[in-house]
Amino acid sequence: MTYHSQNQEPLILVNFKTYSEATGKKAFDLARKIFETGTQTRVKVAVAPQFCDIMQIATGVGVPVFGQHVDSVDPGAYTGHVTAESLKAAGAIGTLLNHSECTIRLADIRKAIVRSRELGLLTVVCAGDVESTAAASMLMPDMVAIEPPELIGTGRAVSREKPEVITNSVKRIRAVNPTVKILCGAGITTGDDIYTALKLGAEGFLVASGVVRAPDPANVMTDFCEATNRFSKTLQ
Amino acid sequence: MTYHSQNQEPLILVNFKTYSEATGKKAFDLARKIFETGTQTRVKVAVAPQFCDIMQIATGVGVPVFGQHVDSVDPGAYTGHVTAESLKAAGAIGTLLNHSECTIRLADIRKAIVRSRELGLLTVVCAGDVESTAAASMLMPDMVAIEPPELIGTGRAVSREKPEVITNSVKRIRAVNPTVKILCGAGITTGDDIYTALKLGAEGFLVASGVVRAPDPANVMTDFCEATNRFSKTLQ
Amino acid sequence: MTYHSQNQEPLILVNFKTYSEATGKKAFDLARKIFETGTQTRVKVAVAPQFCDIMQIATGVGVPVFGQHVDSVDPGAYTGHVTAESLKAAGAIGTLLNHSECTIRLADIRKAIVRSRELGLLTVVCAGDVESTAAASMLMPDMVAIEPPELIGTGRAVSREKPEVITNSVKRIRAVNPTVKILCGAGITTGDDIYTALKLGAEGFLVASGVVRAPDPANVMTDFCEATNRFSKTLQ
Amino acid sequence: MTYHSQNQEPLILVNFKTYSEATGKKAFDLARKIFETGTQTRVKVAVAPQFCDIMQIATGVGVPVFGQHVDSVDPGAYTGHVTAESLKAAGAIGTLLNHSECTIRLADIRKAIVRSRELGLLTVVCAGDVESTAAASMLMPDMVAIEPPELIGTGRAVSREKPEVITNSVKRIRAVNPTVKILCGAGITTGDDIYTALKLGAEGFLVASGVVRAPDPANVMTDFCEATNRFSKTLQ
Repeated sequence: MTYHSQNQEPLILVNFKTYSEATGKKAFDLARKIFETGTQTRVKVAVAPQFCDIMQIATGVGVPVFGQHVDSVDPGAYTGHVTAESLKAAGAIGTLLNHSECTIRLADIRKAIVRSRELGLLTVVCAGDVESTAAASMLMPDMVAIEPPELIGTGRAVSREKPEVITNSVKRIRAVNPTVKILCGAGITTGDDIYTALKLGAEGFLVASGVVRAPDPANVMTDFCEATNRFSKTLQ
Repeated sequence: MTYHSQNQEPLILVNFKTYSEATGKKAFDLARKIFETGTQTRVKVAVAPQFCDIMQIATGVGVPVFGQHVDSVDPGAYTGHVTAESLKAAGAIGTLLNHSECTIRLADIRKAIVRSRELGLLTVVCAGDVESTAAASMLMPDMVAIEPPELIGTGRAVSREKPEVITNSVKRIRAVNPTVKILCGAGITTGDDIYTALKLGAEGFLVASGVVRAPDPANVMTDFCEATNRFSKTLQ
Repeated sequence: MTYHSQNQEPLILVNFKTYSEATGKKAFDLARKIFETGTQTRVKVAVAPQFCDIMQIATGVGVPVFGQHVDSVDPGAYTGHVTAESLKAAGAIGTLLNHSECTIRLADIRKAIVRSRELGLLTVVCAGDVESTAAASMLMPDMVAIEPPELIGTGRAVSREKPEVITNSVKRIRAVNPTVKILCGAGITTGDDIYTALKLGAEGFLVASGVVRAPDPANVMTDFCEATNRFSKTLQ
Repeated sequence: MTYHSQNQEPLILVNFKTYSEATGKKAFDLARKIFETGTQTRVKVAVAPQFCDIMQIATGVGVPVFGQHVDSVDPGAYTGHVTAESLKAAGAIGTLLNHSECTIRLADIRKAIVRSRELGLLTVVCAGDVESTAAASMLMPDMVAIEPPELIGTGRAVSREKPEVITNSVKRIRAVNPTVKILCGAGITTGDDIYTALKLGAEGFLVASGVVRAPDPANVMTDFCEATNRFSKTLQ
């Protein structure tokens, strides 16, 4: 299973943030549910749990695991930092960078991408508007994720509320980077939101509260994955 | 085994930083060696590994585990942050705060102490000079650790190079906080450094490269623990 | 006119923040009104305008001027930073530090206090609760200012809403630092708020929107200054 | 005199950093020397002094003035911050952003560019490598400045040591942004460094210690400006 951008297969990446519904033992259980849904529907899924939960999920569940952030420092005397080496040793296959709740300096995005690539970790750089996402794509990450911050956690899906953000990002990014995988996110709660975004050009999704805080996360994931499959069929 | 400040029993807390010698599988093995040395010499030891390694060590080794840092945010939409809840769920019993390689805002030190206490996590606030350590002790952490940054990682022990930093800190801190446990660190590489610091009033140690990067960490820890026991006997 | 803490004369320090009512030419005019009110009522007043406005006010008005923040770096290759040397060269006599809108690391508070003292600049360290203010007073600034962040800008005065914050701070601070001048702030909009705070033990005030955004700032300042004089008379 | 990117006329922008040779009164005198050299040689020059010195230079010298940084906040309750409004009120015509000594978050670069444009302030976004500079140019600033951090302040000129950084940046940037003005910097101390960089495709310069800390800054500026004129003649 590869997650490189050349791969056009849609990806659904669930960000656990620091939600109590997705911490410790609950993180493990949630990751297992997400993995099972992906397996059943044959849709590519991945999770981004908190640092302390990466190893138990990578080791015990089998679902691909991403970090939520990585610091742009090498191994050494850096108390309290999270290195790419540490993520990799814990079993992560990649990491988010520059999420709107954890924005970082341009120079650090670039350094973290270079370090991650050296170690074989995938990078997903998040940004909040068309220009910033296009700029992020120039730094040569494996994926970018566009999420208008004002829609995150609202249940008002980017694909319905701001479809032009997706279409413009795709246009701007493709002009400068033909291979980066383009995810989108913010407010996505139904399969229809997913289907619409795929039609607009999105190649994957970064979702969070829509799954993590749902009364029945497995149900929502199934809805998302089936919408993905519905869309894939239209391409054949 | 309690680690509260009223407890006069010396503590040796080993900070793994992000050293490659103390990441992933190597973190687990090192933690086990440190735990065994503590058990054999009956000296209280603890480790502060990277976030990703806390759970495997807390679960698999049995040694008390501290985080290297904690963010002062509650559970919720805080991608990339480390909550006290997450540390606790992973099995940590406490956390470092404000290490010179991970300094934080005064307001965040205070918030993190309050949050940690609510969850039953111990706090060790680090500072680099007498005034800052005394100030830190006013924020009511369980422990403070004074480490002159210019000596960290040098092998030139604070107890030899700047004994007055220890004696003055103890004096200033005790005038305003009778119970906080006072650790010291920076440059400590031999049992003699430990013995001298205990005579000067230190009640425990925050060590890092002196153990982690030593050719034989178990050997160094044994040296440290035996020095601690030698000092304890002089008190009886 | 000295502003040292031994001086028991109350001080009213007006923080201009980045309000448009207190930027550029308007900053100059406001500073002049505040200075005139102080002169007329013989109450000590000072202003803390934005960096770009310090020199014109220090040179052209005559009112004592404070910076709103200073970085803890020496002169040199530090693009975008504000040094104590720069504040002094512009005519400032001191600076705020660690305002709740510009919180800084414990280590940087300490460094900035030391640097400022070397240059003869006064320091006012802000903090938001009793413990943090007491901790700040251990770092040996000239003044501390306690401002519960939840009351800043609300018009609900700390002296009415949370009088115990003032009395407890005074008690805690005086136990460890007999000379630091104790300011308070947050929500202060009337002379009565001022009078009450002085009775509770405050020795001065850090005010902002209550003056800057008032329809008639000179009027409010006169109210504040007269309340100060009313209180001073009760001491004779 | 316009500084827009369409304008191919080379610009020499002198960053005063927080050098003591360029603080307060000395900042004023240095700015005057730089302005006179520019006037005599008919080369476009500008200065980026510390915040506290902007107004005196903008008002008293006549040379175009840039800030060294601007915060991405609106006017309001933001103690200690520097707004675009404040820079403009002080007389600045633009600002540096993301200098390697004052790096900022990708999201803040974007916000600061948008805010500055609304107020008519020019933006110069600095970056340290080809990819980051190309990314910065996607955010639609007026100028970008590429400065390899390892050469800053060394006297080893980017145009001699890393000519490919300039040529590759120009190529990458022009592919995505036809109008942004491309400055370069780091280690530039002689007119020959300037001449070479112009031949490589640079359209202007961000210089600092090479001028500010020179025994005779006017002499160095004359050398720089004459090299610029020499190059311009080759184009006619």
